[in-house]
Amino acid sequence: MDASGRTEPGERAVEADEVEQLQHALEEERQRNLRLLADFENFRRRVSRENETARRGALRSALLPLLPVLDTLERGLAAGSTDTDFYEGVAATQRLFERALREAGAEPIESVGHPFDPEVHEAVSTVPSVDVEPGTIVQEVRRGWRLPDGLLRPAQVVVAASEEPAGRWR
Amino acid sequence: MDASGRTEPGERAVEADEVEQLQHALEEERQRNLRLLADFENFRRRVSRENETARRGALRSALLPLLPVLDTLERGLAAGSTDTDFYEGVAATQRLFERALREAGAEPIESVGHPFDPEVHEAVSTVPSVDVEPGTIVQEVRRGWRLPDGLLRPAQVVVAASEEPAGRWR
Repeated sequence: MDASGRTEPGERAVEADEVEQLQHALEEERQRNLRLLADFENFRRRVSRENETARRGALRSALLPLLPVLDTLERGLAAGSTDTDFYEGVAATQRLFERALREAGAEPIESVGHPFDPEVHEAVSTVPSVDVEPGTIVQEVRRGWRLPDGLLRPAQVVVAASEEPAGRWR
Repeated sequence: MDASGRTEPGERAVEADEVEQLQHALEEERQRNLRLLADFENFRRRVSRENETARRGALRSALLPLLPVLDTLERGLAAGSTDTDFYEGVAATQRLFERALREAGAEPIESVGHPFDPEVHEAVSTVPSVDVEPGTIVQEVRRGWRLPDGLLRPAQVVVAASEEPAGRWR
């Protein structure tokens, strides 16, 4: 519309232009909305994963320094004592310790008699296999522990190896 | 515009209406965008808190069942042993245990000689105050532990109480 209020042939073009601009702006806002919703959804998924990672990280960092404490207690028990009463008390504490770790979500990793699994076992040495299949774990040097969603620390083990290849490669 | 392509007086009214509708829709989309952004921001803040809560929860539930293990070990040590070597080994394990708990973020709560604080102390009994101010902790029955952001478990303590009020209230 011009200043005089007359309807000019150009008048409709101006309005059509305005409609077009508005439609364009509206389309842009709608696209922005969709992007925002998608970002929101991605963020939601990501933080749900991050939450889980935070939980796991906290659990790992709390339990990991406690495992050597149990190792030390078990080494002491393995050495034995002349004081039966005191020894029995410490043995009970060791069982309580293991139960508390399980309660916290940790589980010991099976090793002796099982086949070596690089995912959860760390071979510290090998011995010639005599009575067992090569690749079978014959001794556990340090107990391994797993959490429901992954390894806490690997078991350190001694593995039975067939003599032959060792002879060849040396 | 009508089918003949003529410009009628009503023509502009229709277009003005369309412009108004578009402006209205645009305004609605913009408001929706703003609300979405605000929701997003709130969510972001909330999950950042939730992440922290998840970490704390995991830490708490991992450490809490381990504290009675240390208690048992300490009770055993307090009872003493006739096997000095074995005893020393267990005493070393106890120190290692305490260090591991500290490494995991837990700290013992001060009690004996300090004033009773209901936030971190739990009074299991009282004794007449003789050499200390009433309200002073005279004995620790069970050690308390705190995490950087709050209590893990309260210390159970014996508190010195002035005779007088106890006499009056009984």
